[in-house]
Amino acid sequence: MHAPDRSAVAELSREEIDAFLGAQRIARLGCHVDGLTYVVPVIYVYDGECFYSVTTEGQKVAMMRENPRVCVEVDEYDTDGRGSWRSVIAQGGYEELGGDDVETALALLREHFARTTTTEARRPLGRGVVAFRIRLTELTGRSVTR
Amino acid sequence: MHAPDRSAVAELSREEIDAFLGAQRIARLGCHVDGLTYVVPVIYVYDGECFYSVTTEGQKVAMMRENPRVCVEVDEYDTDGRGSWRSVIAQGGYEELGGDDVETALALLREHFARTTTTEARRPLGRGVVAFRIRLTELTGRSVTR
Repeated sequence: MHAPDRSAVAELSREEIDAFLGAQRIARLGCHVDGLTYVVPVIYVYDGECFYSVTTEGQKVAMMRENPRVCVEVDEYDTDGRGSWRSVIAQGGYEELGGDDVETALALLREHFARTTTTEARRPLGRGVVAFRIRLTELTGRSVTR
Repeated sequence: MHAPDRSAVAELSREEIDAFLGAQRIARLGCHVDGLTYVVPVIYVYDGECFYSVTTEGQKVAMMRENPRVCVEVDEYDTDGRGSWRSVIAQGGYEELGGDDVETALALLREHFARTTTTEARRPLGRGVVAFRIRLTELTGRSVTR
């Protein structure tokens, strides 16, 4: 995005980034294998270091198993009716969860989504469902206020 | 995203994909160079074959000039208050615009954004501003109705 005239562009502090990621629910996850880049939306919950998520076996899981270096992006638009927006972009490392880590991730997701209409995090982990976390590095955030 | 029980998952037809892309305004663009994947939000307008956009010189432009193979993703959440959502993912090729193509792209953007609060497409093309299109291939779309 480019910043129009008369808009205030600001870099977000780490505290602002953490608060923003903690409040949002949907990230766009970018992964790459053999020349193919793939961007897909995921639900997530953030614990200050990692995104936790669940998904089904499919293209993005196959790609992240092959190349765990991913990018995550979270944004929010027009929060004030004047077109202001914020976004955070981070690099990340894919880690598939097993054992007790799965239940820990599901508990975090259930708590984060408990008061929303999204039921994805509330069903039991079934066949073909994968729990994973993305360990975040190089977080940058920007806000444009209009 | 994985589909919860009791939800209806449907693949979107090309006509539905085109209508959806024509109505939305923000895409997430994934690009990749030398092991680094980068996902960034962009405003766009869709003409049935390409996304047109303007941005400023920076990381994503530098990356797309080096590797024009990108991915674009557009989604919409909770359109009905029950958590339904739709998303479209496509592969694309970056083409930087010059000459008359710049004015054509800006006119498309101005028309698409004329009735919104977003002013990004209305300012004249200044120093460091880049107009580009992404020619889309391999479009897939999915809806989940709750």
